[in-house]
Amino acid sequence: MEFELAQAIAVLNRTPATLDSLLRDLPESWLKQNEGPETWSPFDIIGHLIHGEETDWIPRAKTILEHGEARPFEPFDRVAMFEKSKGKTIAELLDTFVRLRTENLRELQKLNLTPELLAKRGTHPELGTVTLKQLLATWAVHDLGHIRQVARVMARQYKDEVGPWKAYLPVLGRD
Amino acid sequence: MEFELAQAIAVLNRTPATLDSLLRDLPESWLKQNEGPETWSPFDIIGHLIHGEETDWIPRAKTILEHGEARPFEPFDRVAMFEKSKGKTIAELLDTFVRLRTENLRELQKLNLTPELLAKRGTHPELGTVTLKQLLATWAVHDLGHIRQVARVMARQYKDEVGPWKAYLPVLGRD
Repeated sequence: MEFELAQAIAVLNRTPATLDSLLRDLPESWLKQNEGPETWSPFDIIGHLIHGEETDWIPRAKTILEHGEARPFEPFDRVAMFEKSKGKTIAELLDTFVRLRTENLRELQKLNLTPELLAKRGTHPELGTVTLKQLLATWAVHDLGHIRQVARVMARQYKDEVGPWKAYLPVLGRD
Repeated sequence: MEFELAQAIAVLNRTPATLDSLLRDLPESWLKQNEGPETWSPFDIIGHLIHGEETDWIPRAKTILEHGEARPFEPFDRVAMFEKSKGKTIAELLDTFVRLRTENLRELQKLNLTPELLAKRGTHPELGTVTLKQLLATWAVHDLGHIRQVARVMARQYKDEVGPWKAYLPVLGRD
């Protein structure tokens, strides 16, 4: 599929409600388990998405529009949420995520992006030259990747409970 | 995590709303694309979940409770939805899925499952001896596996649109 702004927004717009439907009021044991050392729980993942709303997607879009390739993006801290989410509840995190996403999609609309602007280039600190269109496609794919991760982390908590069915469940295999 | 009926129900209860939040009113292009020959689109996956509600989970639970290991389960047709979903809209499928799931969770409650009943054994036509508890754990994991699959299938439609970011997005890699 080729990138279309309205289609990407259709995904970005649905992610907070999707994760809310899956996680709000779930028993704590589903929310706080991860896949082992250095892995993330569903609770951690929502914190990570919040940090992206605050520091990654829209700020980088604005950097491209205002500075082009001249100013590299600020590096993104993938694990900032371990500190920032401390003491919060999943309900607070889900509320924050939907609020920030709504604000950011409003910001995005205000940018009035044309095909010419979507083709503008910026500089990623590690990946080099990227376009605004690629940034926005990545925002949507990043959402979907983390929805997938939440479902996988949860599924794997029952890896021993399914008994012989494990053979039929690719979600329990290597990833 | 060890299986607990209430925790499994908490997941089973959320799946229809999760998929509804993700898929309802999405542009058709997101809904009908798959990952290549012999793979499933989000539209196909909802049809598959519906067929499971109709023929798999609760019917098999009742087979275990009524016949124990003496009567093997009816084999489950994993691809019945390709015929059954023809001509339907995603909204119709989502409506059917939530209705059937609600009815089936009501049936499940009516079974008044005790730890003794959860330990009862049945016979899977290919996997052999399984327990009712394993069947119910599998029902929840099967849901989560398909939520994960929907997110992955969608993400991969943009695999070329993200440009250099592909390197940072495991959802676009091999599965």
